[in-house]
Amino acid sequence: MTEDEIPETHVLAIASHVTSGYVGNTMATFCMQTLGCQVSAIHTVNYSNHVGYRRFKGRKTAPEEIADLYAGLKEAHLDGFDMMVSGYCPSAAVVEQVGKIGRELRTRASTKPGSFFWVLDPVMGDNGRIYVAEDTVPVYKSLLKDADLILPNQFEAELLSEVKIHDLATMKQAITKLHKEHRTPHVLITSIRLPPTSSNTPTAADEDLSTSAKLSIIGSTATSDMQPRLFRITVPVLPIFFSGTGDMFASLMVSRLRQAATKAGVSHTAHWQSPDDIAGSDLPLAKAAEKVLASMHAVLVDTEKHYNEYMGSFERRRKSVQLNEGTGAEASEEQETLKHLQLTRAAEVRVVRNARALREPPDTGEFKAMEVAIEGGDE
Amino acid sequence: MTEDEIPETHVLAIASHVTSGYVGNTMATFCMQTLGCQVSAIHTVNYSNHVGYRRFKGRKTAPEEIADLYAGLKEAHLDGFDMMVSGYCPSAAVVEQVGKIGRELRTRASTKPGSFFWVLDPVMGDNGRIYVAEDTVPVYKSLLKDADLILPNQFEAELLSEVKIHDLATMKQAITKLHKEHRTPHVLITSIRLPPTSSNTPTAADEDLSTSAKLSIIGSTATSDMQPRLFRITVPVLPIFFSGTGDMFASLMVSRLRQAATKAGVSHTAHWQSPDDIAGSDLPLAKAAEKVLASMHAVLVDTEKHYNEYMGSFERRRKSVQLNEGTGAEASEEQETLKHLQLTRAAEVRVVRNARALREPPDTGEFKAMEVAIEGGDE
Repeated sequence: MTEDEIPETHVLAIASHVTSGYVGNTMATFCMQTLGCQVSAIHTVNYSNHVGYRRFKGRKTAPEEIADLYAGLKEAHLDGFDMMVSGYCPSAAVVEQVGKIGRELRTRASTKPGSFFWVLDPVMGDNGRIYVAEDTVPVYKSLLKDADLILPNQFEAELLSEVKIHDLATMKQAITKLHKEHRTPHVLITSIRLPPTSSNTPTAADEDLSTSAKLSIIGSTATSDMQPRLFRITVPVLPIFFSGTGDMFASLMVSRLRQAATKAGVSHTAHWQSPDDIAGSDLPLAKAAEKVLASMHAVLVDTEKHYNEYMGSFERRRKSVQLNEGTGAEASEEQETLKHLQLTRAAEVRVVRNARALREPPDTGEFKAMEVAIEGGDE
Repeated sequence: MTEDEIPETHVLAIASHVTSGYVGNTMATFCMQTLGCQVSAIHTVNYSNHVGYRRFKGRKTAPEEIADLYAGLKEAHLDGFDMMVSGYCPSAAVVEQVGKIGRELRTRASTKPGSFFWVLDPVMGDNGRIYVAEDTVPVYKSLLKDADLILPNQFEAELLSEVKIHDLATMKQAITKLHKEHRTPHVLITSIRLPPTSSNTPTAADEDLSTSAKLSIIGSTATSDMQPRLFRITVPVLPIFFSGTGDMFASLMVSRLRQAATKAGVSHTAHWQSPDDIAGSDLPLAKAAEKVLASMHAVLVDTEKHYNEYMGSFERRRKSVQLNEGTGAEASEEQETLKHLQLTRAAEVRVVRNARALREPPDTGEFKAMEVAIEGGDE
């Protein structure tokens, strides 16, 4: 698999920008460009680094500035986008502005089915906690009918669908609602904790989603009557918190889905929706996700290796300093801050040094999409 | 040649950002990342597209914002840069701010020779015309003593050295002055029009620099007593105006010079200055430039091919429209604007689709650095 096999694709990417490190557009732009896509990036914030460092500087982009940049593209006839991917927005007003752009591109493409595809990552929160302004939630809901693919995590899927997800049946219920009521053709829920499956068809609809060391993603492309077609891919969880993996996933999905939809011959049909006889695990969405997760796992394993090496040398340096200087409480607090900063930096995803793993996802067969058959879960 | 052979390098890149197309940091970031460098980008403007389209929107970055982002990096301990590359600045105040950052990084690295290297592209004008505010010129002059490598074009070299360049002797005079008076260890003058050389040692010191279809770059790394060591590489001129090639050259030089200096064993010596017995054409600067120009030529030839294909189809469409609609003067003016916009877009450097040519510069032997021996030209 080489970069040349991905069709030339012009992508509008709207997300955050950081000077140092790899999150938001700083992550997404490199990932998509490495897969041969032309990326036009509009930044929703311009920060020195991601907020996980707990220290950062910079500014948020006003919604008017985003409107202005987009107007500039239109006036210069540079708005012929094949795809759009939108991520973190610092306010509900920015989400609304992004929605305006997405709707405009969608409307303009309406005479040419499949000529525009919007991947929406509704960044609102995680693990039961909203970390954006509350008024952002209804705005994201209002965008769902115009997006082609949404990539919520489990918590965001709950916010959007208003279905509490605690097992596979409620998961299916949430996805069904997103397809049927919100008219979103493709849904992919990331970061679900599910027990590993030994068969293709997990039967325990009430299995506990919260205790496993494996992570699942569950996706679905709606059939013509907006019924879900589910597939599931299980990936091992690495014991480190990496920032930017959501942006990495979204951007790689843009490139790989374009490739898979073209290969499957559906890229000129409305919303790239596969014919009804295609099973969940055979969907272009599933094929794309398999490649993306294989790439990501390879990059994250290398990042983890470097992180552990760095952590080891950090601890050795710290012990040597303690021996020399004693351990006052003040020094210790400063050291903890320093440790947090340095380990956060060490956890920056090593995407640039692993570009080959993006271009050529290792074909280990580890990340296979499987059918998900569930009793119940229909509305 | 693979990306893995370039040492891990953390680069601070300060230049313009455009949403669509490839100039400034939008070009430089991709080029350096593709060669495996970690790039921290601070944007001096955020425009929709480059100004060559004659229509663009967006905003300039205030010098305070640049200072703020840099302060954020320092506070989060993310300012351990191996190299810095600085390009277009929208005002003298921004040039001053960039200078402050460069000087600070330089001072901090002073106990560790070679641990910081600043590539300065003094973007002021071209072909006898200044296109920045006039008060920018003296500020750039004041930065020369802290930069390691400067990349002026012929006109900018004249502005900085105050030597009018009209032949090889005056070229050498300008470079000597930049080395001796301004203390810049490496100088590389781009875009010089010189007749092609058939021998390694052009003897006509007064040859006319302005009429040839070949382009030369002339570089020099100063000896220990700040005497020039010149080399010259000649490249064919393509008949299209490409934007962003200066940023492409500067950023690829960052990565390739780091590689060449490491290979030559000078990356831990002050300013990466080679021992006095190394000839001009054997300098790491020359070796790096050979690779960079080979990469660039391959990318630009592919861009030219696509440009010509597009231009052909544009002319065919236009003729068919004229046949159908007649040619009113008003329609014609609108068509000219449209043609300008579309051809400017078609001339966007196809860097993303040619990433392999960046990683693996074609080794055709076409871009060989040659000695330049000139009678006279010393001060």
